[in-house]
Amino acid sequence: MVLMSKLIFVGLGLHDENDISLRGLKEVKRADFVFAEIYTNLMGGLGIEKLEDFAEKKIMVVSRKMLEDENGRQILAAAQKGKTVFLVPGDPLIATTHVDLRIRAEKAGINTCIVHGASIISAAMGLAGLQNYKFGRSVTIPFTDFGVIAETPYDIVRANLKSELHTLCFLDIRAEERRYMTIKEALETLLEIGKRRQESLITRNTLVVGVARAGSKKTVVKADFIDKALTYDFGSPPHILIFPSKLHFMEADALINLAKAPESIRKLIK
Amino acid sequence: MVLMSKLIFVGLGLHDENDISLRGLKEVKRADFVFAEIYTNLMGGLGIEKLEDFAEKKIMVVSRKMLEDENGRQILAAAQKGKTVFLVPGDPLIATTHVDLRIRAEKAGINTCIVHGASIISAAMGLAGLQNYKFGRSVTIPFTDFGVIAETPYDIVRANLKSELHTLCFLDIRAEERRYMTIKEALETLLEIGKRRQESLITRNTLVVGVARAGSKKTVVKADFIDKALTYDFGSPPHILIFPSKLHFMEADALINLAKAPESIRKLIK
Repeated sequence: MVLMSKLIFVGLGLHDENDISLRGLKEVKRADFVFAEIYTNLMGGLGIEKLEDFAEKKIMVVSRKMLEDENGRQILAAAQKGKTVFLVPGDPLIATTHVDLRIRAEKAGINTCIVHGASIISAAMGLAGLQNYKFGRSVTIPFTDFGVIAETPYDIVRANLKSELHTLCFLDIRAEERRYMTIKEALETLLEIGKRRQESLITRNTLVVGVARAGSKKTVVKADFIDKALTYDFGSPPHILIFPSKLHFMEADALINLAKAPESIRKLIK
Repeated sequence: MVLMSKLIFVGLGLHDENDISLRGLKEVKRADFVFAEIYTNLMGGLGIEKLEDFAEKKIMVVSRKMLEDENGRQILAAAQKGKTVFLVPGDPLIATTHVDLRIRAEKAGINTCIVHGASIISAAMGLAGLQNYKFGRSVTIPFTDFGVIAETPYDIVRANLKSELHTLCFLDIRAEERRYMTIKEALETLLEIGKRRQESLITRNTLVVGVARAGSKKTVVKADFIDKALTYDFGSPPHILIFPSKLHFMEADALINLAKAPESIRKLIK
């Protein structure tokens, strides 16, 4: 008898249980064991019970502790015994912890494969109508705890702007504490650094695009200069932030028509 | 009576008709008209007839000519009349032509919305086990026609390597001619430019990762130095190519364990 030792990473996509692919759902239905983690990204509408109804089986939700401190032992043990699906928000393997688990599985002789899902990376670029090949490196803006402000995000936005590249900024998530950074908090952090450094690169006149709840029926995409963006109500999380650089005319057209940007952004067309 | 004027862009994901999300399929089933384009990306296993079976309706496949030269008039006319779904490979709005159509629709008073799908952008990063925030700007390597070689891709890989950033290289697709650039062709083009410029940045000793048929059961991910990668049989398209820069130790671990890289790549760990 061939031992069915297999671990399949399945992406859940962006918003709720309807964002899994037909292929992903098939794998879940065929699986002996199903695990899910829901802390690396916030899926605003996800109900695990609804997903269990679709899947016609029990889903075990794993915590950060089980996955990171205990190296996913429970998932690997299940995968040694039978076909195991591990559900993750977005597209699998974007979070380092999933790559780590995949390496551990392969080293333990467990076959792995991936069923991809929609990711906020391409979703945010597309929703803003900004061209993928004009993005420089992306960055996460972390919460400022104990007054310590990480300056790397600011430096990356600056380097990208100087190279005329857009920047995709992921905003910090602390699912255990139910803390999700807002666009407003992220902007205030970056403005604070610019002020302290007495630089005029990121100011109240810098263009930004905020995207809230991508993939849901209540997706909001709004482009404006920071002073206006700070007063805009983006609503509940998750939020993501883009710093556009110089714009192609079609990008400007997209921001004006699809993200309610003011006409004055046309001055950034190059 | 409210006129149901609506255009929904639905991402088909990476490989075949099973990569659509449950949400996407629901929208297709509810639609009055369904269009699809299948030329901006190759979905190796997609059968439009199978998709029509799932959808329980006819799908009209649109050509590049209909979408670009005629500005998608047919799709917009349908969307004026009833709920219309436009199916696109990958995640919608990554191709400029989709953004253009969305702007035209909104300007014509047609409501638009997006159902996201898996994109090769995040899929390739994840399959290689390379960290998203270490990628610089991405680039497309075009076919060299009439002996003219575009040097921009080379310059972008070079700039990223100098900034210690990875580069995701999309390979040219000419669906009408059924021409899909292979990893081998892309590497030969870049080596040729390096040779002509007498530079030693991209040489036979440069590490690359080739990804073929992402999202299919026959996905191949192979990391090696160019001289070896040139002789590797990646099989049928679509192909995609990554130039990794300096590696985090877990990235090296991923390339060795998940992409069969030689142990000697550990010298690139920083």
